[in-house]
Order: sequence, then structure tokens, then C-alpha cells
Amino acid sequence: MARIAICAPSTALTQQCVDRVTQLGAAEFPDLELHWHPQCLASEGHFAGSDAQRLESLVECANDPAFDAVWFARGGYGACRIAEDAIARMDHEATRKVYLGYSDAGYLLGGLYRARIGRPVHGPMPMDIARDGGDCAVRRALAYFAGGDAGLEASQDPHPVVAFNLMTLTMMCGTPLMPGLAGHVVMVEEVSEHFYAVDRLFFHLTAHLGGIAGLRLGRISDVPENDRPFGADAEEIAHYWCERHSIPFLGSADIGHDAANSIVPFGVASDTQRS
Amino acid sequence: MARIAICAPSTALTQQCVDRVTQLGAAEFPDLELHWHPQCLASEGHFAGSDAQRLESLVECANDPAFDAVWFARGGYGACRIAEDAIARMDHEATRKVYLGYSDAGYLLGGLYRARIGRPVHGPMPMDIARDGGDCAVRRALAYFAGGDAGLEASQDPHPVVAFNLMTLTMMCGTPLMPGLAGHVVMVEEVSEHFYAVDRLFFHLTAHLGGIAGLRLGRISDVPENDRPFGADAEEIAHYWCERHSIPFLGSADIGHDAANSIVPFGVASDTQRS
Repeated sequence: MARIAICAPSTALTQQCVDRVTQLGAAEFPDLELHWHPQCLASEGHFAGSDAQRLESLVECANDPAFDAVWFARGGYGACRIAEDAIARMDHEATRKVYLGYSDAGYLLGGLYRARIGRPVHGPMPMDIARDGGDCAVRRALAYFAGGDAGLEASQDPHPVVAFNLMTLTMMCGTPLMPGLAGHVVMVEEVSEHFYAVDRLFFHLTAHLGGIAGLRLGRISDVPENDRPFGADAEEIAHYWCERHSIPFLGSADIGHDAANSIVPFGVASDTQRS
Repeated sequence: MARIAICAPSTALTQQCVDRVTQLGAAEFPDLELHWHPQCLASEGHFAGSDAQRLESLVECANDPAFDAVWFARGGYGACRIAEDAIARMDHEATRKVYLGYSDAGYLLGGLYRARIGRPVHGPMPMDIARDGGDCAVRRALAYFAGGDAGLEASQDPHPVVAFNLMTLTMMCGTPLMPGLAGHVVMVEEVSEHFYAVDRLFFHLTAHLGGIAGLRLGRISDVPENDRPFGADAEEIAHYWCERHSIPFLGSADIGHDAANSIVPFGVASDTQRS
């Protein structure tokens, strides 16, 4: 039996998402208990409630001994406003939990990894149920919580790994949330950014990733049309900036803002894969 | 007589812009010579020619003893790809020139300021002629080249100042282009970014601006409508992040992506104002 607390450090869920994920969990994963923090449905401006509300619910979920894992409800934007304060308040109970999410939740995954609190894991969130094929994404996350390995990202690098949204990791560089990534394989994915913006993000990010073992490129999807073609695709952009900073480019990663987004437990595989 | 070389380190000008600025200059500023590098009209993918072309024309303009100033044709995106290499190749002649531009040209202004090459100045570019009231913007730049002080940003801080596009400065943080800004008043402006993206940029930027004398907020214009209001305006966002990092918030700055964009010579006023 795994007991999973769900809160929303960024933006709010809908009741419909809560219901659909609850039903899928009950039907297929009888050994999982999903506990939805009411803050998942809160709203204040852009966010799922005020900074104070989101901070309290996250700390509550992380420190409550009744839970084995914290699942971030969805991305959007907002986790970077509360991550530092939340991590500072996490206690002993928080250190034995899995934390699962991606996109804007990456600020928390990064900060937790830096602080060596629990096991940060990149993977699908409840909001993914609203995607085409979203059942598969949510099922992949639930299966992971239930102890399955089937949804793990398949590249078997011998180095510790992390996975982030490109914008999120770029914005984390040099902040108190940024983990040391020397020796790591770093996977990045992006959605809805122009190629020139992707190039600009790589300009910044690669200047901060000296000493990593290598970079893997997840899916760069839904690139908006610009008034003229950029002149290079996402892989060429990643190659270019990796080469400028002597970072090994290791190929693709099976992550992205889509239903196929796979699961990447942070750290070395032997620490994180379960059999 | 001031002789001004114009090149395009980012994206290309149109012939119409070249003609209109040339006419305005000839009619009103007989003591200025405008020398358009043909690369201003070049095109390759997103950029005003290849990286090599943009690099060569910039180095040529900077190192040519026939010119007193280098004027960047327009922003867009691309200067960060060539700035480091260009600055490394600049010689003695480059150190006595004024460099004028803003937006994406900020990567060059920042890198030049860090390298103590010449006098980087934030201000209107030839492409501004295409704006509503763009004549005034271009006239302001030409008057500055001609020795006038009328277009200078009016806040009279006793500290050295710099001015940047918010995205540009944020992306420069921690890269080899970033100047040390301790003790400086930093002005930032932005255009066409959602409030949540502005908040995210301030999250990153303020974490890198420890020790500055203070921040002034230029215009944050053409903010796209989101599916819901963010809940704070640009000044509230800037206040919030400045307070989190103990950075004095000094009020507004008269800069922006518009025809009123004023001129900010980098450094201390006594070094840069001319009478």
C-alpha cells in the first residue's frame, strides 16, 4: 500500500481531473491511496491559491508521516515562488518520500535534489489526464508509485541523471534552488517556445552546465510558427551549444510535454530503480 | 563631424528603413555621416546573415579607425551567438567608440561593458523608424551622436547605471558576457511577455543582482492577455522580487520598446554626459 498526497504548488486542477484520476486509480491500482489536498482546487490570480496557501499545503504533504509520496498536481507557473521556503521547512518525514512531477514542478525537484531531501522524480502529473492519451500518462505515474519499472526512461547511462523542462532548468541556474549537476546526464524538454527562444535558452543553460556528463534532448514540441524559419532544428541547436561548451551531446531522451513523457528518477539508476 | 558605422548583429533591416533613416540624418544632422554596412540587409534563416557574416561586419565596424561610433541596426535575436568572439577580436580602435543599441543588442552592450571596451549606450536603433513616432526615436539617437544631451534618461542617480531588456539581461547572467553590476543602478524594460513570464524572469535575475545599488523599472509593454489575470502588475512583481533579495527598488525608468525609449550611457554620469 502506497499513500500519495497530491498538492498544487503552481496552478490549479479542475474537479473533473481529480475525478478522472481518482476513478482510474481506484479501478486499476487498488493498492494506492490518493489523497487530494483541497488546495489543488484553490485559485488566486494565476495560481492555485496564494503563495502562503501553496506553501502550507506542500509542507503539510511533505512532512505528514501518513504519506509515502507527494505528487504535484500540474505545472503552469508558480513553484519557484515557494520552493525555497518550503524546502527550508521540510523535516525528517519529508526525506523518505518520492516527489513526482515535471514542467514547473522542476523547481521543486531541483531544490529537493540539491537539499538531498527524498527522491525527486520527473514524470507525469494528474493534469496530464486531460491530454490525448492522458490515461496512459497517469497510469504510468500510478504504476511507478505502485512499484513498477515499466515507465522508466530507457536510456541506460551509467551516470546519475536528472530531467527538466528547458525553461525551468534555465531559470534555476545560479539561484538557491539549483543543484550541482557535475557528472550528471541532464535531460531537457520544451513546449510552445519559438526556435529562437530555444536557442537563447541553450545559450544561457550550457554556460551553466560545465562538468556535466552529457546532455540528452527530449521532445521540443508545439514550436510556434515564426515569420521566417529559424534555420536550425532543435537537435542542431542543442548540438551547437553543447559543442561550444564542450558538453557531450548524447542523443534523445523520451521525455516531453505529452502523454508519452517517461519517468526519470533523479540520481544513479541503482539507487532509484526498484524491482 | 561624427562618422557612424551601422551593422546588424541580430536580425536584418529593410531597405526602406535604411532610406528613411538616411534621409532624416541628411536633412537634420549634416555633421553626421551614416555608413551602412551591406550586412545590414543580409539574411540567413532568422538572422541578418550567418554567424560568420555578422561577426565579421561587427569586428570590421568596431576596429575601423574611420568610424567614431557603432550603431546596432535592430534587435530580434542573435547577438549572443557572436558577442564573445567579436569582443575577443576588438582592437585598440574599438576602445574609443560609442556603441548604441538596446533589446537584443544588450548582449553586446553588456559584454563590451564587462571588457571595458568603448562606451556602451542603451538607446534607439535605426529599426525604430518603423514605429509610430519612430522619427523622434531615431532623431534622439542621432542627436546623441551629434553631441546632444537632450535624449538622456532623466533619473539622476549618483551611481553608475546600465539599462537592458529584462530577457536579455536575465539570459546574460552567469555567462562570459555578464558585466559585474555591484554598485550600479540597473534599469530593465520588457515587451510582449506574459506577466507570469515577467515574474519568472525577475525570479532569476534578482538572484544574480546581489550588491547592485538599486533597480529601476522601465516600461513593460504589450503584455499578452492570458486566460486569467496574473494578480499583480509589473511594478508589484519587481517590488516583490527586489524585496526578497534586499535590492532597493528605485521607481521607474524612461526606457522601453517604444518611440520614447531614452538614452542611457553605461557607467557614471560624469563620464558619459557631454556638454
